[in-house]
This record gives sequence, structure tokens and C-alpha cells, in this order.
Amino acid sequence: MTPTSRTKLTRLPKRGAHDTATIYPILDEGLVCHVSYILNGQPFMIPIAYCRIGDVVYIHGSVGSHFLRELAKGIDVCLAVTLMDGLVLARSAFHHSVNYRSVILFGKTRLVTDDAEAWDVLKQITEHLIPGRWEDTRQPNDSEMKKTMVLAIDIEEASAKVRTGNVNDDPEDADLPHWAGVVPLTIQPQTPIQDPSQNPEITVPNYVTGYKRN
Amino acid sequence: MTPTSRTKLTRLPKRGAHDTATIYPILDEGLVCHVSYILNGQPFMIPIAYCRIGDVVYIHGSVGSHFLRELAKGIDVCLAVTLMDGLVLARSAFHHSVNYRSVILFGKTRLVTDDAEAWDVLKQITEHLIPGRWEDTRQPNDSEMKKTMVLAIDIEEASAKVRTGNVNDDPEDADLPHWAGVVPLTIQPQTPIQDPSQNPEITVPNYVTGYKRN
Repeated sequence: MTPTSRTKLTRLPKRGAHDTATIYPILDEGLVCHVSYILNGQPFMIPIAYCRIGDVVYIHGSVGSHFLRELAKGIDVCLAVTLMDGLVLARSAFHHSVNYRSVILFGKTRLVTDDAEAWDVLKQITEHLIPGRWEDTRQPNDSEMKKTMVLAIDIEEASAKVRTGNVNDDPEDADLPHWAGVVPLTIQPQTPIQDPSQNPEITVPNYVTGYKRN
Repeated sequence: MTPTSRTKLTRLPKRGAHDTATIYPILDEGLVCHVSYILNGQPFMIPIAYCRIGDVVYIHGSVGSHFLRELAKGIDVCLAVTLMDGLVLARSAFHHSVNYRSVILFGKTRLVTDDAEAWDVLKQITEHLIPGRWEDTRQPNDSEMKKTMVLAIDIEEASAKVRTGNVNDDPEDADLPHWAGVVPLTIQPQTPIQDPSQNPEITVPNYVTGYKRN
């Protein structure tokens, strides 16, 4: 995607990217996005689940949601997905950093009124959260579909920013006695907790026991 | 904090809270916040490290940063911190959810010009990232302080939203054969990777080997 004045990276441009090959895997790995918008001249923001299909990011929620009804009017939003990959512990406090992958994108919201598109989105939001789950659920009925609002954000502009690798201390600090390096961070699933009201003989599916995020 | 029209929760108010005893631990546990603001009538957003001291959230960065220079003018921002605690796998796709703790807050930015306040912030941002680290670094010199901009966001309004617990399926779905339950998620530190240019006899400090986020 061609950088514009909104997405051109002015600081540390070496960390920036505008290609979908960098941007889309970040969108596909994140669990939650943040959507910011303007209401009555004030900035607002909400964290929300999402999915990507092609060049579109989708969110969904209750038709009774105030903020979704605001977004359903078709307004400009800025959407961010941020993945934390590690702490970067330099010898100097100044060069402390984090390894991360983040995407900022801009687009207008669009209410999804096509039933087939909405169905595909609900499927993909579930599959985005945990691949393999959709076919192992009781899928939405008409009443649930009517209670659900689906919004599209057609990506107009997007940029990624990524920091990887080890510390970057000043040469004159090289011999300082402070341990220097990176502490990688990952999202780790813990032991699944079955609904206590369910028959314990129903075993945990493989897509749960093998769940990982990256 | 008293809810206003900006922070009053209209959907699922049972999940909402406005007390600092709920809000501040969420701010203190997060690694990254998202800050949204308005520029030329458009919503913008940036993910950034931060810390909280009292009723103030602080961010910092390079004095050359375009977005920090914009924020330094003293403008309205909305700031979010979101912690993902687990996947909630209901029998029905409709009742799928996530366990999370999130804070949305509003405030005006303020450029920190007092050297002592700025120093305390840089210390606290480091300690927020990894407690115990500040005293084990080469602390900032005058040149580094001059290159660093510190911004305060005095919290005007804030609200927290929290979902905990197990699935919440419809009673008529109780006997469906789909495994139902929660998959807790945590941020897990991996084996630290020392700067290859550093003497390997410098051992990994206890505050690194014992690092955990919650």
C-alpha cells in the first residue's frame, strides 16, 4: 500500500512497512484490535474482537451497542493491532525498548447488510479466535443473526511497524556490568477449564489442546 | 470516578466499574497502551509504553516524534489498556466470548517540563516494564534527557470493563456435544537471550528469571 501523509512513518522509518505481506499476518495473529473514532469532536476508542477477510477488517457485536450504532453510520476510523514480542533490556535505561509488531490502518466503516457476508464474518471471527472451532459449535440461528451487527472496515491505508532483534547500546556502554539482552514474551494457553455443568466425558478437542497464537 | 456520558457503560453494565481499585491494577499490569487523538479532523492512534503515577498516566519518546509533538500541544486523548485473559468457548457460536480486563480513560495531554517529574517518569516507565531494572542500568545522562519528551495525561474520567468466569450458554444448548469451557491465556516469558557481544559470565538477574506479568 502506498504511504500517505497519514501512514508515512517519520520516526525510525527502517522499522516501517507498507506491504500486505507484513501487515496481514500481524492482523491475523492479534486477538483484539482497538478502534478509534470521533464522536462530538472527542476521540473515542474501544477494544474489540475482529477478523480479516481479504482487504477488509470486520467487527461485530450487539445491535444494541451504542458505539456500534455510531460506527454503523459509516465514519472514519483508525484501527490498531499490536503484538508484544519481548522486552529489550539494554545496558542504558535510554536504549530500553520492546520488540513488537503493530499495524495501524485507516478506513470508513460500512454496515454489512448482506446475510451471506455477515455469516462468513461470524464464521471467520470464530475461526480467527481459535481455528477449528466453528464446525464444533451450534451455529447461529435466525434470532441470533438478527441480534448481531456486523461492520466492515474497508482498508484504505495501512502501515506496519516492527522491532526485532537484540539490544542496541552505545559502544561506550559495552563494558558496563548490567545484564543485557531480550526477554521474549509469548501468549501461553493454560490448562482448559471445562464448564462444570458439562459431562466431563466430553474430551478437550485437539484444536484446544494444541492452541497457540504464533 | 463518577461516570459521565463519555464513560457510562450502556451495554452489559454489570461488567463495568468506575473505581480506581479496579482501574489502576489494570493500568499497572498492561505493557502497552493505545492513545487515540484527533488530527485534521481524523482519528489517529498509536500503541506506546507508559506508566501510571497516582492519577496520571505518562508516555515518553523522542523529541523528534511527530505524534508526540502533536500531543505536546495539550489535546484531548482517549487511552486504552486491554488485557486478554482467556478464550470463552461456549456450545453456541453466539455465546463465544473472551475474558478480559480493559480500561478506557480520557484526559488532556500536558508536556512535562519539570526535570524531577520527567526523571521520576523515566524511572517508573522502566520499572513498569520490568520491576527491579532501573537500579541495574546506566541511568540517563543530560544529553539523553534532552532528547526525551515526557507527556502527562491527567486522568479526567476512566472506566473499566471486565469479563471473568466460565461460559454462559442458553439452557436449551446444555446437552450439545461440543466441548465448552475457558482456555486461560497468560503472557509467558521465554528463555532470556543475552546480547551476544556481552561477557556470558554476567548472570541473568533474578528480576529477569522471575519475571511475570500478573
